[in-house]
Amino acid sequence: MSDTPLPHFRAALGPGDWEQVAVHAYKQEAGVPFKDITRRLLFSSPALGCELRYFEMAPGGYSTLERHEHVHAVLILRGRGQCLVGNEVRAIDTNDLVYIPAMTWHQFRATEAEPLGFLCMVNATRDKPRLPSAEELTELKSDPAIARFLAD
Amino acid sequence: MSDTPLPHFRAALGPGDWEQVAVHAYKQEAGVPFKDITRRLLFSSPALGCELRYFEMAPGGYSTLERHEHVHAVLILRGRGQCLVGNEVRAIDTNDLVYIPAMTWHQFRATEAEPLGFLCMVNATRDKPRLPSAEELTELKSDPAIARFLAD
Repeated sequence: MSDTPLPHFRAALGPGDWEQVAVHAYKQEAGVPFKDITRRLLFSSPALGCELRYFEMAPGGYSTLERHEHVHAVLILRGRGQCLVGNEVRAIDTNDLVYIPAMTWHQFRATEAEPLGFLCMVNATRDKPRLPSAEELTELKSDPAIARFLAD
Repeated sequence: MSDTPLPHFRAALGPGDWEQVAVHAYKQEAGVPFKDITRRLLFSSPALGCELRYFEMAPGGYSTLERHEHVHAVLILRGRGQCLVGNEVRAIDTNDLVYIPAMTWHQFRATEAEPLGFLCMVNATRDKPRLPSAEELTELKSDPAIARFLAD
């Protein structure tokens, strides 16, 4: 969280791009699987209990398959794709809402045709994501729909 | 804040409309000035320190001119218009970001041509908005740009 006061106005420069909003690597950890995804921190302030981030995947990109105690409140801002929440795979389209409860496996995947961008509201104080063990991954893939989703 | 678990997926039904998201009156208090505006609560959960709301003004509509201790983190989801933050009036367009610090006068206004819809992230626990006194309104209107904005 930054203590720098937020500007009152920051204009959109194009889809998924804003003035005075830096583009960050999605994750810094080694060995964490993801593909073609960036992260932008839109709102972070000591005055707010949450942060609002924007994640964007290039066509064919995907976020890390993970779970954690903190929850995610997501609005798809741009494009379409697929999303795993728990044991459910769903098609997602612009402006759809996705809620990821505590300790629930989740992953976002863009289509091959276009970028997928989403807003994610998250508590400012939160735990670190956990990756699936080999056993947990095998268990997840025992569902054919999840196996297809993860293989795409 | 609701204790009802949030659905994992809620599809957008059209601009500013979602399945399983109720449309509420903007405010319930008598004597508070606003025009042609609705409120939707997109995400509210005991697991989240903030709520994400969606406000939509019909063409020519406007929110209440007010201030409060809690801050607002806003993303314009639909349309364009004008916004007052403190002593600055700015044109706002789709996807622009607006931050409203504590105790800062603010108002959103749609154009006459189209609806204006915005996401607003706000702390779940917050103080009640305060309206300007006659003296504060006179002081605000001493700035010609603000006087024109409020007269629109």
